[in-house]
Amino acid sequence: MDVVRSISEMQVMRNAVEGQKCSIGFVPTMGTLHEGHLSLIRSARDECDKLIVSIFVNPMQFDREDDLAAYPQQLETDIDIVKKEKVDVVFAPCKEEIYPEGFCTRVELKKLTENLCGKRRPGHFEGVATIITKLFNIVKPDRAYLGQKDYQQYIIIKRLVQDLNMGIDIKLLPTVRDKDGLALSSRNRHLSAEERIKARCLYEALLKAKSLVRDNQREVEKIKSEMEGIILHVRDAKIDYISIVDSDTLIEKTEVSGDTIAAVAVWIGSTRLIDNIVIDT
Amino acid sequence: MDVVRSISEMQVMRNAVEGQKCSIGFVPTMGTLHEGHLSLIRSARDECDKLIVSIFVNPMQFDREDDLAAYPQQLETDIDIVKKEKVDVVFAPCKEEIYPEGFCTRVELKKLTENLCGKRRPGHFEGVATIITKLFNIVKPDRAYLGQKDYQQYIIIKRLVQDLNMGIDIKLLPTVRDKDGLALSSRNRHLSAEERIKARCLYEALLKAKSLVRDNQREVEKIKSEMEGIILHVRDAKIDYISIVDSDTLIEKTEVSGDTIAAVAVWIGSTRLIDNIVIDT
Repeated sequence: MDVVRSISEMQVMRNAVEGQKCSIGFVPTMGTLHEGHLSLIRSARDECDKLIVSIFVNPMQFDREDDLAAYPQQLETDIDIVKKEKVDVVFAPCKEEIYPEGFCTRVELKKLTENLCGKRRPGHFEGVATIITKLFNIVKPDRAYLGQKDYQQYIIIKRLVQDLNMGIDIKLLPTVRDKDGLALSSRNRHLSAEERIKARCLYEALLKAKSLVRDNQREVEKIKSEMEGIILHVRDAKIDYISIVDSDTLIEKTEVSGDTIAAVAVWIGSTRLIDNIVIDT
Repeated sequence: MDVVRSISEMQVMRNAVEGQKCSIGFVPTMGTLHEGHLSLIRSARDECDKLIVSIFVNPMQFDREDDLAAYPQQLETDIDIVKKEKVDVVFAPCKEEIYPEGFCTRVELKKLTENLCGKRRPGHFEGVATIITKLFNIVKPDRAYLGQKDYQQYIIIKRLVQDLNMGIDIKLLPTVRDKDGLALSSRNRHLSAEERIKARCLYEALLKAKSLVRDNQREVEKIKSEMEGIILHVRDAKIDYISIVDSDTLIEKTEVSGDTIAAVAVWIGSTRLIDNIVIDT
């Protein structure tokens, strides 16, 4: 396995296989890899001839300095993890390589960033769209693999690739969860043992929404109010948002019908967690 | 010569030569081709194995509806012109192909768009950067050719390609001028015979700046005031801007030293013309 730190080296490697009939799979990550990432890596491994994983904690997508500073990093451990997964190349550039002096380009998506995390974290998805455009241009994958936990990110990247004619196939894989339902996230390690238990409330609220819809409750206000009840019942849990949106447009619904996602962002102490599930199709 | 109207057809054509050791030259245009475009096309023809020219009047880069409506278009004539230049492919998509329903991505550059035309035409360079990103992703050229008349556009595209790691070589070619010095532009055809004569004042003002610098005048305010005198002397000429800027950063100077560009935008009647020259290196 090659560990590549410079963009030019990555480009040379990538261009060397250009025109060969081999498919390139790509899993972009911010490191601190968990089973969620591994599920993406394994799918990519199965479906592609070459597999590239990037590890880069992208400062541009953090809306708060302290959040960036606290974000877990463990490059050496991550490299050991992916080595076992038969990854061909780990691309782990430094910040200065990605954002050199004079860098001034931004990629933005209107509309799709107006709800959910886009509304709550100004500039976040501009950072995501910009880094993803760069990584896709450097790695030039045939397919890229994303997890459903970051569903809005998936929708935005799919639109970005379509809008900018990047010709990359974007694959979505299911959220990987702990036994009690908590969606895996690098941020989970910020939780104390007590908070870890409280964090269950996100998935519980989502399951409640799903079961209400299954029982033919279609009124979004009523569903949200039950979800809110579950979360507010937990001490130190603070709702950032509870949203019920169209799965494609991410526009808020007043009535559940057709492709619908329920999504939540909740502060457990000083850690902000997100999760979502499909509640209607 | 192939005339391609759809993105997917263009991509199939482009991907067919992927991995072959043949270099692709690209000249993006808005049509109504003149000798300025032909100089780009001929350089590209000389330096590249395959040559693709795009013709697309990009609505996103017009800041005024009436300007877009009045912009000259002559696709059939343009196709005849490029046929004679041994162009391999003309890519001439329609608006709906480039901006389908739901399109919502924008590419922006901060800083480099703050002066000159960027300041005067809000959203213009966002439109340029977005369409160029799309065209570059579709055509995947090795080299793209731009004219110096649109110098700010060149600087922005060069930075865009670097920032988004597109790996395309951007070539700048000198402004092509009529005998009396007027920079060729598709907009020149809006000028009446009388206005056409008045339009000389742009280049005259630029030459004045250059000769002042040659005579060791370094004070930007004094140079600008002489340029202003030349333009204001012409009835119906209205200055949009006169700028003296660093050739790389496009930042306004107070004293001429090192790489310096003088640039002007002037309304001649209802037609806005731009021009620039290097006044110091």
